[in-house]
Order: sequence, then structure tokens, then C-alpha cells
Amino acid sequence: MIQIYTGNGKGKTTAAFGLAIRAKGRGLKVAIVQFMKGVEYGEVISAKKLGIDVYQFGTPEFVHPEKPRKIDFELAKKGLEKAKELILSKKYDVVILDEINVAIGFGLIDKKDVIDILKNKPENVEIVLTGRYAPKELIEIADLVTEMREVKHYFRRGITAREGIEY
Amino acid sequence: MIQIYTGNGKGKTTAAFGLAIRAKGRGLKVAIVQFMKGVEYGEVISAKKLGIDVYQFGTPEFVHPEKPRKIDFELAKKGLEKAKELILSKKYDVVILDEINVAIGFGLIDKKDVIDILKNKPENVEIVLTGRYAPKELIEIADLVTEMREVKHYFRRGITAREGIEY
Repeated sequence: MIQIYTGNGKGKTTAAFGLAIRAKGRGLKVAIVQFMKGVEYGEVISAKKLGIDVYQFGTPEFVHPEKPRKIDFELAKKGLEKAKELILSKKYDVVILDEINVAIGFGLIDKKDVIDILKNKPENVEIVLTGRYAPKELIEIADLVTEMREVKHYFRRGITAREGIEY
Repeated sequence: MIQIYTGNGKGKTTAAFGLAIRAKGRGLKVAIVQFMKGVEYGEVISAKKLGIDVYQFGTPEFVHPEKPRKIDFELAKKGLEKAKELILSKKYDVVILDEINVAIGFGLIDKKDVIDILKNKPENVEIVLTGRYAPKELIEIADLVTEMREVKHYFRRGITAREGIEY
């Protein structure tokens, strides 16, 4: 199956990591490819402790939506290659592609290449895609799509990201 | 802060567990109280391995929305007492009350008692409430609310819950 967690609300990456530890707790093999992230966030530290394989393709800096750097393109491309390799290897039951929707939205990778990977995935591999801006072509081929809708967020009140809660 | 994950889409409990491992990865102390759940699901197995304290107040059977048993009321009440104790103890940075919204929705616990606990919580304790049917009074006092909106779900196609993915 293909699952997508998108929308502007908090909870997309955490839902994917929660799913990762659920699967791991049941003895499934799980890999996570993170696009545009180059820092060991709290969830990555914990996931690795549990034996979940995490591959990061990003720099410590945020990617500028309108001015991505050459390195951002290069890393996203490498991330997609790694994703393809992991999915086709059949070594994993669950492969999570964290923030891949944003990488597509920012133009770092081509959605056609992502669709191509999804359409050729081995049947029993569960794929989870996260990030805002999931394109409609991905939503069409997905089996499950949840939109995390922001009803209320403390960021609007000027609260900034807190260690252990947002990252 | 008080966070709520509600709505009919997949990803509420997993988002809470993802947040739990993020916090734990940063060295924060995390407790999870599960209402209406009495089985060690995959995510519980993994969370405990990481040193997250998980307390379950449920039986292996599902609670019938219209015919809850005496034991369901008793366990939910005990769950709420445990939640209050953990929150007031100041021993935890993050306390997750999984499925508490459903316990309120099913009439197992009184939302007034939940509101009372939330209004008297120590300032630095992050509280996370999950489950469908979050009542508007809780949404009002929450600092962050995400609605997990089901855009598409394979359950509609007759696919049943799969170990490691749904539980």
C-alpha cells in the first residue's frame, strides 16, 4: 500500500515515525529516507536506537522555497536514488519518504520519477510519503491519504519551535 | 502547551507516539496513558524499549460505543486518575492521553473532569490528547489542534487492519 500524510497541520512526520515504531515493534523492517533534513532530530535519534535505518539527504540549513541551492538539488536526487534502491531491494517491509512531497513542491525532484518508483514497487512494500503539497497525481495512486489540517497552532501566537516537541 | 490530534483519518495515535519518541530522543521524560486499549500494540512495544512509560486502561476487546460495560467505565476512570497523577507529579515533560477524546465521546469519562485537569496542569508539562470526537470545549482550551482528515482510506475498499501497520 501507499500512504500519504499531507496538509498544513502538525503531525505528518511524527505520524510516519509513529508508524515506523509500530512496524518495528512487530518485527517488520523499516527504513526512512528524509529529504531536505540534515540534522539528527529527536525522532531520528530514537528511531536509530530501535534499529530503524534512517538516511538523511539534506543540510543543516532549511531549503529556501524559491532559491534552492545546487546542493539541495544534488542531495534530493541522491535521496530519490536511495529511496528507489531501498524499495526495490525487498529488504524492507516499510519505507518512509519523509518530506518528499515538499521536495517535489520545491522542484528539487520530479514527481514523474516518484510516480515511476511507486508504480514499480514490489507489492508487499508499504510506502509512506509525508509533507505538505502532495500533488494530485500522487494522491490518485495512493491507497490512503490523510490531510493534517491545522485547526489551531501556537506558532500563530509567536511561539517558536521547541526542542523535543518540534524537532 | 496542550495539543490535540483528532478527526477521522489515520495518523492520530501514531503522531502522538512519533512526538513521544522525538521528545525522548531529546532526553525529555514521557508518559503515555492509553484509554480503551488493553493490548501491547507494536508502537507500545517500541516505546517501552526506549524507556517511555506506557499505562494501559482497557481490555483486549473493543468498547461498544452504545453498550459500554461496567469494566469499561471503571478502567477509563482509573485511566483519568492515573493521568492526573502523572501530570501533577511534575516528573514528566510530556504526558500523552491516547484515545481520551473517544473515552469522552463514549461517555466513559466526563469532559468536565478532563478540562479540570488541563486547567490545573503545571505550566511546563506538554499534554497531548488524541482520538476522534474531540469536544469543542477541549478544542477551545488547546494551544494546538490538528484534524486528521480522511481523504482516502483502504478500509473503504474492504482491506482489514494489518499487524505492524494498524496496530
